[in-house]
Amino acid sequence: MRVFGVDPGLTRCGFGVVDGGAGRTVRPVAVDVVRTPADLDLALRLLQLSDAVEQWLDRYQPQVVAIERVFSQHNVRTAMGTAQAGGVVALSAARRGLPVVFHTPSEVKAAVTGSGRADKAQVTAMVTKLLGLKTAPKPADAADALALAICHLWRAPMRSRLEEAQARAADIARTHRARLAQAGAKAPAKPTKTGGRSQ
Amino acid sequence: MRVFGVDPGLTRCGFGVVDGGAGRTVRPVAVDVVRTPADLDLALRLLQLSDAVEQWLDRYQPQVVAIERVFSQHNVRTAMGTAQAGGVVALSAARRGLPVVFHTPSEVKAAVTGSGRADKAQVTAMVTKLLGLKTAPKPADAADALALAICHLWRAPMRSRLEEAQARAADIARTHRARLAQAGAKAPAKPTKTGGRSQ
Repeated sequence: MRVFGVDPGLTRCGFGVVDGGAGRTVRPVAVDVVRTPADLDLALRLLQLSDAVEQWLDRYQPQVVAIERVFSQHNVRTAMGTAQAGGVVALSAARRGLPVVFHTPSEVKAAVTGSGRADKAQVTAMVTKLLGLKTAPKPADAADALALAICHLWRAPMRSRLEEAQARAADIARTHRARLAQAGAKAPAKPTKTGGRSQ
Repeated sequence: MRVFGVDPGLTRCGFGVVDGGAGRTVRPVAVDVVRTPADLDLALRLLQLSDAVEQWLDRYQPQVVAIERVFSQHNVRTAMGTAQAGGVVALSAARRGLPVVFHTPSEVKAAVTGSGRADKAQVTAMVTKLLGLKTAPKPADAADALALAICHLWRAPMRSRLEEAQARAADIARTHRARLAQAGAKAPAKPTKTGGRSQ
């Protein structure tokens, strides 16, 4: 599976493409940082970013797009720009029918370093090691984009196992409710207030 | 001038198109609220919104798009969704080469009611009156979208006057600096540390 990881931003937007193989093997495909000028109109910055995303989707043909989920930042203005950038990236993927998944920064850190509180240097070091890169990807946004893609590749099997388990649990609950209803049709329709469920 | 006002949101996105005439005359063209299902994937919600924006741009051919600028909201999750929605709207406009302008909620309120702290009911009442509508636009997002368009129409002349004044001031400053440089070429090239600017 090929994943396009995006660390969204207007000033710097990290792009990273990673292929997942058997087990936990991951292979780097491409990494870069897209910048848009701070003195340009917001709408035009979003347009430049969107064009760059389209180029990468054309060139690398990923099967999934993983985007960092922004929760909050100290600077509200930056947070809004980051959210807008993420929205534009998600839109491009959705237009092509590609699944888009959001991962939080702590999920990404935990996936590649084992700790949700790891710092940027640790994330960069692990990404460099896991992908067998000769030099560390710079700036941090580039490393983060690769970490996002790795996080998605490693979480995806867990996610599908979880979804299967949830579907199975829902099946069991449905069967159980059906049996209860059948039993209810034979037994008194409504248990007394103190009956049935107490104890 | 025809303005497309957008009160961005994922659950409800207000759309309002208003024509501006001579003086302060404003004429309603269209108003609606676009909703996307809360249980749909974020990327698909953005796609539905983007498709609706494209339809409105095709149908009403506005010359400007005015979007509410999101600063902060109590609910960070909602604020992010709002920012993403606004980003997607701005992108569609930018792709068509349309100017996109952001106005803050208080600018919008001040433009239509005279007070930046007016409540939703007051904004709706003024929008209904200014546009000569028989019934008040509902929900509030629809009224806000119309208010945004009116705000833009009324602020646009002020903005261009301001820009002209700034350009004129920059011209004067340039001429002044050029004269100073000329004078400097005749006088000593560099004033002493205590000279010139003190007093």
